[in-house]
Amino acid sequence: MDRKTAWILTLGTEVARGLVVNTNAAFLGRRLSQLGLDVEGVLTLVDDKRLIADLLGYVLRTYSPSLVVTTGGLGPTYDDVTLEAVAEALGRPLVLNPEALQMIREKFVSRGYELTRERVKMAYMPEGAAAIPNPVGTAPGALIRHGSTTIVCLPGVPREMEEMWLRHVEGSIGGLAGASIAEGSILVSGVPESTLAPVLRSLSEAYSSSYIKSHPRGYELSSPLLEVYVSAVAPTEGEARALVREICGRIAGEAVRLGGAVREYRCPS
Amino acid sequence: MDRKTAWILTLGTEVARGLVVNTNAAFLGRRLSQLGLDVEGVLTLVDDKRLIADLLGYVLRTYSPSLVVTTGGLGPTYDDVTLEAVAEALGRPLVLNPEALQMIREKFVSRGYELTRERVKMAYMPEGAAAIPNPVGTAPGALIRHGSTTIVCLPGVPREMEEMWLRHVEGSIGGLAGASIAEGSILVSGVPESTLAPVLRSLSEAYSSSYIKSHPRGYELSSPLLEVYVSAVAPTEGEARALVREICGRIAGEAVRLGGAVREYRCPS
Repeated sequence: MDRKTAWILTLGTEVARGLVVNTNAAFLGRRLSQLGLDVEGVLTLVDDKRLIADLLGYVLRTYSPSLVVTTGGLGPTYDDVTLEAVAEALGRPLVLNPEALQMIREKFVSRGYELTRERVKMAYMPEGAAAIPNPVGTAPGALIRHGSTTIVCLPGVPREMEEMWLRHVEGSIGGLAGASIAEGSILVSGVPESTLAPVLRSLSEAYSSSYIKSHPRGYELSSPLLEVYVSAVAPTEGEARALVREICGRIAGEAVRLGGAVREYRCPS
Repeated sequence: MDRKTAWILTLGTEVARGLVVNTNAAFLGRRLSQLGLDVEGVLTLVDDKRLIADLLGYVLRTYSPSLVVTTGGLGPTYDDVTLEAVAEALGRPLVLNPEALQMIREKFVSRGYELTRERVKMAYMPEGAAAIPNPVGTAPGALIRHGSTTIVCLPGVPREMEEMWLRHVEGSIGGLAGASIAEGSILVSGVPESTLAPVLRSLSEAYSSSYIKSHPRGYELSSPLLEVYVSAVAPTEGEARALVREICGRIAGEAVRLGGAVREYRCPS
């Protein structure tokens, strides 16, 4: 089965500096994983055109992801530099996109606002981009095919980003993934994480498409409590669910054998 | 004034996939910024040694940051690979750190647990690392000086990471920054972001150490509401505050001149 990878770029100085908790990364990470894409990395970068172009270029050259989604930096202000940076990384000129200009004109002119330089700026996109309508705000998004990579640029305001992702993007990039993911979790008490570690390691080796991860929820020694998260990727939803059921069952059995107790068991039916 | 930069690496497949909202990035982004460090980027990467070593190596070579802070991947399980990846990126061997081993021994052996391979694993660190005590959990952190860069590796569990950062790290790396930052914000209604954009651009050019950013909180056209965030870096706290007061005052004046109203005014005294 082909492994399809994705990278997320959440752009904005306010995100890098921690003035905003990065909920866009969490939203996109979950949606892309559920589509069966393997999210390898999330880059949060300050609004610096050179830096964004450089790191995006490095990721494209080095990891050749199937999909890159960017959020932020599409607005009218001088520090909204995402589309310039993407153009630079792709070696394409930034050009006035007539589709995007029409979307912006409809928003502003119909309400009596002029098309100032700052407003028109939002319609400059890398050559060959398709504009994505923004039903909530004013800045259109952009979708660019570049070799085997699709690049989707969305605004940073969460309600705009989510609406555009769900209404206009997910359907058109769903075909990229071609695989399903299922997930489950169990909560085990009474076994320190370091005791369960060899069991999880060998299961993880036995099920190569799986991802198994223990998260300490209590205190390792005085009162160990572990959440074990399990996911598996397979060509169909049914196969992915079956794999997760099988792995969760084996972990539960081992946890009990090691003197622990299973407190919660959440597996796909 | 010397500009000191920082990068944050929040490591963990669960963070990249959005199963966890990245509060560690927000905590560290704020703390580092308040120390006067310029946070350029946050990288969230899956638990893949090769990937982490490669991107960390790229950031070190390309941007030469003063500080890199990593979170996650220090535990006993097979997918906790941070210290191996850091060793690889720095071209140093991974060696048993006697200080770290002693910290781990005290935790486990004193409570009747054996020192298994998985527990001893947490004491393997890049050569030359200083171990950082973990008062909450079991995995020690690591502090490594590498050329002009300091690398600090902390666990991913937020209560462990925050406690270690505040108690054992911040004091020893504070000297890195050598500058102070101050911040303020004002809330403006009645002016669309694209109308205020040229004002913010020219202020940002006039005050080169400042960062000025508008965040739409309402609806651009029907009911515009903008939060304008302002920060400035200066050699002393007093100078930084004075710069922020001056910039906020000028933005408020321009907003009113453009037909808007200032709804909130939060500036340092």
